[in-house]
Amino acid sequence: MKKIFTTVALSVIFFSIAQSQQSKSDSLFIRKIFDEVLLRGHCYENLRILCANGPRLSGSVGAEKAVKIMANAMQADGFKTVKLQPTMVPKWERGANELCVIESKSGKRKLNACALGGSIGTDGKNLKAKVVEIIRWSQLDSLKDEIKGAVVFLNRPFDPTPIYTFSAYGACVDQRHAGASKVSKYGAVGVIVRSMSHKVDENPHTGSMSYDTAFPKIPAMAISTADAEWLHNQIKNGEKCQVEISLSCKEYADVLSHNVIGEIKGKEKEEIILVGGHLDAWDNGDGAHDDGAGCVQSMEALRLLAALGYQPKHTLRAVLFMNEENGLKGAKTYADSAAKFNEKHLIAIESDRGGFSPRGFYVENSENALSQLLKWKPLLEPYGIHDIKQGGGGADISPLKPYNTALIGFVPDSQRYFDYHHAPSDKFEAINKRELELGAAALAALIYLYDQYGF
Amino acid sequence: MKKIFTTVALSVIFFSIAQSQQSKSDSLFIRKIFDEVLLRGHCYENLRILCANGPRLSGSVGAEKAVKIMANAMQADGFKTVKLQPTMVPKWERGANELCVIESKSGKRKLNACALGGSIGTDGKNLKAKVVEIIRWSQLDSLKDEIKGAVVFLNRPFDPTPIYTFSAYGACVDQRHAGASKVSKYGAVGVIVRSMSHKVDENPHTGSMSYDTAFPKIPAMAISTADAEWLHNQIKNGEKCQVEISLSCKEYADVLSHNVIGEIKGKEKEEIILVGGHLDAWDNGDGAHDDGAGCVQSMEALRLLAALGYQPKHTLRAVLFMNEENGLKGAKTYADSAAKFNEKHLIAIESDRGGFSPRGFYVENSENALSQLLKWKPLLEPYGIHDIKQGGGGADISPLKPYNTALIGFVPDSQRYFDYHHAPSDKFEAINKRELELGAAALAALIYLYDQYGF
Repeated sequence: MKKIFTTVALSVIFFSIAQSQQSKSDSLFIRKIFDEVLLRGHCYENLRILCANGPRLSGSVGAEKAVKIMANAMQADGFKTVKLQPTMVPKWERGANELCVIESKSGKRKLNACALGGSIGTDGKNLKAKVVEIIRWSQLDSLKDEIKGAVVFLNRPFDPTPIYTFSAYGACVDQRHAGASKVSKYGAVGVIVRSMSHKVDENPHTGSMSYDTAFPKIPAMAISTADAEWLHNQIKNGEKCQVEISLSCKEYADVLSHNVIGEIKGKEKEEIILVGGHLDAWDNGDGAHDDGAGCVQSMEALRLLAALGYQPKHTLRAVLFMNEENGLKGAKTYADSAAKFNEKHLIAIESDRGGFSPRGFYVENSENALSQLLKWKPLLEPYGIHDIKQGGGGADISPLKPYNTALIGFVPDSQRYFDYHHAPSDKFEAINKRELELGAAALAALIYLYDQYGF
Repeated sequence: MKKIFTTVALSVIFFSIAQSQQSKSDSLFIRKIFDEVLLRGHCYENLRILCANGPRLSGSVGAEKAVKIMANAMQADGFKTVKLQPTMVPKWERGANELCVIESKSGKRKLNACALGGSIGTDGKNLKAKVVEIIRWSQLDSLKDEIKGAVVFLNRPFDPTPIYTFSAYGACVDQRHAGASKVSKYGAVGVIVRSMSHKVDENPHTGSMSYDTAFPKIPAMAISTADAEWLHNQIKNGEKCQVEISLSCKEYADVLSHNVIGEIKGKEKEEIILVGGHLDAWDNGDGAHDDGAGCVQSMEALRLLAALGYQPKHTLRAVLFMNEENGLKGAKTYADSAAKFNEKHLIAIESDRGGFSPRGFYVENSENALSQLLKWKPLLEPYGIHDIKQGGGGADISPLKPYNTALIGFVPDSQRYFDYHHAPSDKFEAINKRELELGAAALAALIYLYDQYGF
């Protein structure tokens, strides 16, 4: 009995020592990842090159140039396998006209406005109508007589109180996405939407919208938050406001585009660990935070591991998805192809919440992956990564959900994200090099841990 | 025995319930603090007003205007007691000339340069000398023959690897602070110092320097990191570089200035809880992050508690210290006065690390205050406050240390701080409203908890 007890006790002690040594070696390796990116990172310069290329909305010439630029960058970064995966994508063009002028007793004022992605144009004419402001959807019924023949101004602002700012976005974005048809149902002839941002400034924020085919399609624009505040005050003060809108945006037939995939072959396992962002971006800025950052961080995460001589057990893939913004076609093509060729993905990690300081990871659909990640928290906390919990993974990895892949979203600090999101201010200059690099290292650390230990 | 056991068990249960209810009510109150600042915060507009006032280096007309502006802002914010505390401060003026031109075989290049605070001028002349680059202090001995009669270029860059960026600053700032006399000892006639920043850009960063009176005083300038890289490459490529320097900065006799103190009287306790930042700022930017942010956050923390109807047990003070940057005279005056009038401070909290997203608090000198704060961590984590440990409190509260005050430093995200620190880029526009507000609420939450429970 005593002997058994001694044996058990010794085993426990040895196991604890082995575990603590393992944890120490993981801790040292993760420190090397962060050192590597901060001393010799490539992601900031890769992002500079991508942003310098100009706009890259799906279906545009710029998007196909971006595909080539990033495939080249992957090769320059040492990826031995770089593939372009064909995918059909929508093609919508903004055109030159984006006029939105308010006329009232006090004169005319041109607003900072832009077409919403997917909107129809005004067919070479200038649309003129009175403006009706709507804050809550319930007002649609109470103001139905006024809405008929009007342009509706959807002006429900972000709630500033949620600390995680995507919650405020989630509670407002229905206005942008579904607003046109919701007001068209009541006979409105156009819609102008308050930009999706906490910040009150002059930038109009674009973004996708879609039509419910049950109702007439009407033109849809966003106006800056500063102009939304101004227009709200005009209307509140009893001014009768007329709006004049001209849009030359247009939808074309789908065109061929590509996902860009870089791969490092695994030594032991069949399963794949994926990390990705989306390569397409709205056409009014550089798409630096949304989502050039996620693209260059995904590539960088794998490059960092390779630069440290790490030989992965699983095959690691960095995927730059095409067409997240207005269709998710690249993501669907990727998941369909994975299913067809029986490529099993253990985890898929997405970086699409901006290039800010890392704060955490959200695990969408796997209690095992989450509980494993929580055990690694002490390894990640020295890098500011504390916020580990259940939450959304991301749009581009979501089509992998039916195939039993654990989906994980990278969560950087969210306070400034909607200052830039879909706006002309989303420029390369809005990126802080260190914050971007820390995010890339956070992804690499996560990939390393799941590659080593699974879940 | 059984009865005793039952009694003890019940007591434990009741105590746990009471504690959990207390914790719930604290949690709700802290949520109210954050809601209040995010919905109806004053600090961002107060900072706008302060920054619009122009430069406010100690001893300048702008600094005295800032004293009045902030005293008025405190009154407008509802502080019943607002005091100006007289303090003598140094007066140093930059003057109009800040010329630094490098001449080599390839021609002349004007560098982005500025005088270091406290430097002597060049006495109406242009100083011309060869340039000798020094990275490590040990090179002073090995290059002593070359240094004689030269301008020394101190070019030890920030180490990018520490996650908390102040560590990198701490390991480099000796070049700025003590560099002039260190090289003057070897016969140098001037010093140019690489700006104290991670970021490679065109901004020269000023900051305080002082002379060791054992050696001749020589002019001291900072050059931008981009120019430091350029100059380094010139020298590395074997170019013989001459520098021409002209500075018209000058030290004057000390002048009268003021700390600004707003107070809310406590209902039960003699002791004071202090929160503060510094009102003076370097003269080349708005001093928005350094430390306009800390000033308006300190005022806001107390205003938030008052706005929620909170009646403090302890007297709460928001102190805007004068002259942190080049003398710490306001801080010393404050502590001397507190000692003289036997004003005991329970805790002093300082916000002087920029207006970025809250990450934590460092407790300098009290194990009890730290262990108490760690118990409150679950109340603060929902707001991104995880990094609670022993660490530096801050310069302005440091003179209170001998009086047994627990010193606590507020720690926001540090990644971007040195992009702006002491540089022309430290403008109001570099502040994100939400990040600033979250910091103010974090301070208010901490004050509330210590006021309620002490340590």
